Amino acid sequence: MSTTTPESRNADNAPPVRTPRTPFARLHRLLLGDPIPTRDEKDARLPKLLALPIFSSDAISSVAYGTQEILLALGAAGLAAAVQRPAYTHYVWLVTGAIAMLLVIVAASYRQTIFAYPSGGGSYLVSKDNLGVHVGLIAAAALLIDYVLTVAVSIASGVQNLANIPLLASLQVAKHQVGICLFFVVMLTLANLRGLRQAGALFAFPTYLFVGLAYTMIVLGLAGSHLGWQIHPDAAPQTLPVGLGAGGGMGAIGLLVILRAFANGCSAMTGTEAISNGIPAFQKPESSNAATVLLGMAFILGSLFIGISVLATRLHIVYWEHNGMSAPAVIDQLSGTVFGRFGHWAWLYYAMQFATAGILILAANTSFADFPRLASILANDGFLPRQLSNLGDRLVFTGGIVVLGAFSIVLLIAFKGSVDRLIPLYALGVFTAFTLSQSGMVKHWFRHRGSGWITKAIINGTGAVVTGVVFAVIAYEKFAEGAWMVVVVAVLLVMLFRTIHTRYGAIWEQLRLDAPGEPAPSLQSRAKNVVLVLVASVHRGITPALRYAKMISKEITVLYVEINPDKTKDITEAWKKEFASVELVVLPSPYRSLVVPVLDYIDKVEKDADDVITVIIPEIFTDEWWDVLLGNSAGPTLKFQLMGRSDVVVSSVRFHVQGTIH
Amino acid sequence: MSTTTPESRNADNAPPVRTPRTPFARLHRLLLGDPIPTRDEKDARLPKLLALPIFSSDAISSVAYGTQEILLALGAAGLAAAVQRPAYTHYVWLVTGAIAMLLVIVAASYRQTIFAYPSGGGSYLVSKDNLGVHVGLIAAAALLIDYVLTVAVSIASGVQNLANIPLLASLQVAKHQVGICLFFVVMLTLANLRGLRQAGALFAFPTYLFVGLAYTMIVLGLAGSHLGWQIHPDAAPQTLPVGLGAGGGMGAIGLLVILRAFANGCSAMTGTEAISNGIPAFQKPESSNAATVLLGMAFILGSLFIGISVLATRLHIVYWEHNGMSAPAVIDQLSGTVFGRFGHWAWLYYAMQFATAGILILAANTSFADFPRLASILANDGFLPRQLSNLGDRLVFTGGIVVLGAFSIVLLIAFKGSVDRLIPLYALGVFTAFTLSQSGMVKHWFRHRGSGWITKAIINGTGAVVTGVVFAVIAYEKFAEGAWMVVVVAVLLVMLFRTIHTRYGAIWEQLRLDAPGEPAPSLQSRAKNVVLVLVASVHRGITPALRYAKMISKEITVLYVEINPDKTKDITEAWKKEFASVELVVLPSPYRSLVVPVLDYIDKVEKDADDVITVIIPEIFTDEWWDVLLGNSAGPTLKFQLMGRSDVVVSSVRFHVQGTIH
Repeated sequence: MSTTTPESRNADNAPPVRTPRTPFARLHRLLLGDPIPTRDEKDARLPKLLALPIFSSDAISSVAYGTQEILLALGAAGLAAAVQRPAYTHYVWLVTGAIAMLLVIVAASYRQTIFAYPSGGGSYLVSKDNLGVHVGLIAAAALLIDYVLTVAVSIASGVQNLANIPLLASLQVAKHQVGICLFFVVMLTLANLRGLRQAGALFAFPTYLFVGLAYTMIVLGLAGSHLGWQIHPDAAPQTLPVGLGAGGGMGAIGLLVILRAFANGCSAMTGTEAISNGIPAFQKPESSNAATVLLGMAFILGSLFIGISVLATRLHIVYWEHNGMSAPAVIDQLSGTVFGRFGHWAWLYYAMQFATAGILILAANTSFADFPRLASILANDGFLPRQLSNLGDRLVFTGGIVVLGAFSIVLLIAFKGSVDRLIPLYALGVFTAFTLSQSGMVKHWFRHRGSGWITKAIINGTGAVVTGVVFAVIAYEKFAEGAWMVVVVAVLLVMLFRTIHTRYGAIWEQLRLDAPGEPAPSLQSRAKNVVLVLVASVHRGITPALRYAKMISKEITVLYVEINPDKTKDITEAWKKEFASVELVVLPSPYRSLVVPVLDYIDKVEKDADDVITVIIPEIFTDEWWDVLLGNSAGPTLKFQLMGRSDVVVSSVRFHVQGTIH
Repeated sequence: MSTTTPESRNADNAPPVRTPRTPFARLHRLLLGDPIPTRDEKDARLPKLLALPIFSSDAISSVAYGTQEILLALGAAGLAAAVQRPAYTHYVWLVTGAIAMLLVIVAASYRQTIFAYPSGGGSYLVSKDNLGVHVGLIAAAALLIDYVLTVAVSIASGVQNLANIPLLASLQVAKHQVGICLFFVVMLTLANLRGLRQAGALFAFPTYLFVGLAYTMIVLGLAGSHLGWQIHPDAAPQTLPVGLGAGGGMGAIGLLVILRAFANGCSAMTGTEAISNGIPAFQKPESSNAATVLLGMAFILGSLFIGISVLATRLHIVYWEHNGMSAPAVIDQLSGTVFGRFGHWAWLYYAMQFATAGILILAANTSFADFPRLASILANDGFLPRQLSNLGDRLVFTGGIVVLGAFSIVLLIAFKGSVDRLIPLYALGVFTAFTLSQSGMVKHWFRHRGSGWITKAIINGTGAVVTGVVFAVIAYEKFAEGAWMVVVVAVLLVMLFRTIHTRYGAIWEQLRLDAPGEPAPSLQSRAKNVVLVLVASVHRGITPALRYAKMISKEITVLYVEINPDKTKDITEAWKKEFASVELVVLPSPYRSLVVPVLDYIDKVEKDADDVITVIIPEIFTDEWWDVLLGNSAGPTLKFQLMGRSDVVVSSVRFHVQGTIH
């Protein structure tokens, strides 16, 4: 006989989805939707307008705090006291410009990666391909950690923002911060389990709302300040608290302050990596669509960032943190000044606040798009358990989504949802990955050359150097504050990858059929099949088991384990009366164990190492799931105990008790 | 062939215990000890000197607070202001005497029960036997609830006592009260899982220490006050807080106060029930040993109670609770006065405090001896899941012990370990059971008569009436405070018992072989055994499964579920090369489900309703338990999904991958 695939011609006509029967399955269906057939995979891919919010919400959300971090760093250095001086404006613009440059360099570098690795060019793949598996695993570990941190940081800061909105502040949102954070993690997890497209539709709105409002604010604000429109009196510029930064001056400014402002300002670029890793999620042509989305993201991010920084200097916004207090967020100050907090246009101010909180929370979604994909690639390569590579009901990598949600929850609980304590751990990972990936691309161009390879190598080389510098700055600034934990966890992760890989290799070594020196396995065997039927009492429920035993072997023994010697006589007499044709062996069990006497008996009857012992366990099942609570647990226990023997086959033969309670 | 029991003659020579292999099994062995052979059951029984502390610690512990509750009730009525008057002493003695009488009546009643029901005469059995199953179940529900409450109340009050010992008060034991309570519940649970004998040895010491110290205190105190020895100046009699009870007088005293004092004072008699329920745990002759222990308990309890009450009036002790404050416990005041808190004999004072805390905590152990036994009787009668009737490794009813521990923990957490909030729920159950059991005994004597039956009926009748009155008093006093919860839970429990019983009956109706009209089951069958072997990839690990399939049937099909169509070609080609002799059927799975295509295929190949389908799942196992994390979960999922079909037998055939990580 040969291989046949009688039905595979019909594979395209997926049959209708089965209706789930159990309550749990129905809940699952309700939450996550009907399964999607595999052939719909291309339909589940993302059009550009959905891909942009999904892959960019993280990066774009950074404008909500990027400028603020710069103002903070410069203010702490004493410069803000000189808020009216041109020098302050000068430094703000300098750092903003540097970050915008970095953005252009990283975007240009990754654009090249996207075309060079059209089937997905995440840092892991690029590093592994060019710099070896070791380096690839380091990049992968760094990224996985950063994705979990992104979820925790984004949601924590979004909830913090929510808590500061005047309307919600009175509801004391802050009191239940951790609980609200966990709620959002669970919602994001469920949304992503439903599938990327659906998640995208859900997430596009707040992202575009934020972008639209931010542009409106910048244009109105700049035009207003240029034309001399009245600034809303309730939003007069903040003054610094007495004694803070007052004694400063130009002398205090230095490279370190600029670097700190720079490191603070560019800490949220994970979205870039996400796009190049997620190319297969784009519609065809994947690479060019991904490149377009990357450019769109870079343009929006850069223009909003520059616009907000310029507006902040124009409106003389300062930002400070002192003794646990802080000025209102820069976005809050800006939109309050431009739209007004109480006037006709105050609804725009409130819309801006909600959109900001929304995009901060959705920033977490970038990780949900990317973590499962990277985990599945690692699983396919044998560095993580295989299950993480399975596409679920809804064509998403279910395992990775659940793992990401779970780790984020652990992190939020461990750090009590505090942004301040999570931030120092953040961004080290993604700049590790950036640096390794760009270095890998340089090597790639040297190896493959092609037209204009020198220019390309220079672009990626610049990217590698610049992101490497940023990595060093972040590591230097944050190490003692918590970044060391990231290093420790990354090392452990790489060790885990390698252990899993070695283990899969060792197992496969014994499973492969082409192993040298080993004969091909034969299916013929003269071994015997000794069948043991276990009974606990004499009733109709054991008949199917006995019938099955007779069907599969001639050598049958029925075993009764004598746990309570008082009952033995009743059992043996009932047996003689009902099933006299089969021999019943009573096994004493002085320690009332069910398993040990059976194991001993198996050892006794097994004469040939090739013999197979089939242990048949009669089981009873009813139509009510809770009846399992009334049954005994002997069957599962015995199966568990016999799991470690390759010579024993355990078969359950079931008797169906019909009907419900009268 | 006929029934043979080739080994049962050797049953007495229990083989040596197997050494456990897994880490979990080793921990289990370490905590709970080696299994005990069934034949040792008689050795595991309790000698009288161990049975006394096990079954009586609850009752005896009540002297630690019985007198105090009387003084409190009388004090609140204004009588304590008249502490010097003979009337106060008079009322204390009156209530003490009434409770002592109650004790004598209950003990005498139960003594008769012990001899009338030598195999165990708990309230459930006696009520069921004489008043019907309904009444029996009510008694059982009331008792089960009370046992759980006893554990919670005893441990909470013991820990409260510990927290008040001067030495420990500075350690702020009170702050961690719930945690310490849970610790003691877990310790008691483990001790009881090790077995009654061992538990008894552990518990005898504090009980006898308390009894010895209490007698010493009473004798010294009475002798001292008689001979005019100096009373320790640091323990002068408490005076009532200003305004509390000052306005009282003889007018305020009434039946209600006496009843409240009575109800408070007799709230801990569960030990009596425990003895008559636990007769089978005594050494032979069980009944007379149990009766001796019952008398011993009643004597110790009565004499200590009377002694402490007399001593308290002699030393002019008062007790009050006011605005959340209270006087030191009566035992504390008494031992402080008699032994002194700072002098040469202060160590006796401290010993008394620790022994009191100890016996209060150990009082919980009475429930651990009795709850599992009652649960096992109910399980044997089909009113609770069968598992609760299994004797564990150590000849104890493991299930009941664990259930009791778990419910106590829930209760302690729900009520935050507060004695004040638990007390009102307490004692209603046990007096329900007392009343029903004694009423049952009256009926018993009327039915069976025998020598002196009229006297016996009068004794039990008196018991029934007196405990019935106490029941009414407790219900009246405590209903609104929380006793209503006990009633609700008891009703739910009785409904649960009846549901389980109906369900077992309905299932057995279909399992019994002597059902009228049904033919005896035949073991002969002409049905076919269609074997389906599921493969996920082509490797050496599936060879044993294929070999086994050939062994048990001629009709074999190998199924490959096509989850990822890209891989199908590789699989079919590898199959042709390695196992060409067996047909491979590729099942498309448009929704990437493993189970659905297999179920559809089974429906297709099953032509005759009698046919059996054997689904063989090749499994791989290694010597490292954590390798299961690397394997896939397809096998268990499929087994779970096929559990609801009596026509399908699922067999796992395993391949053993040897060796460890290199």
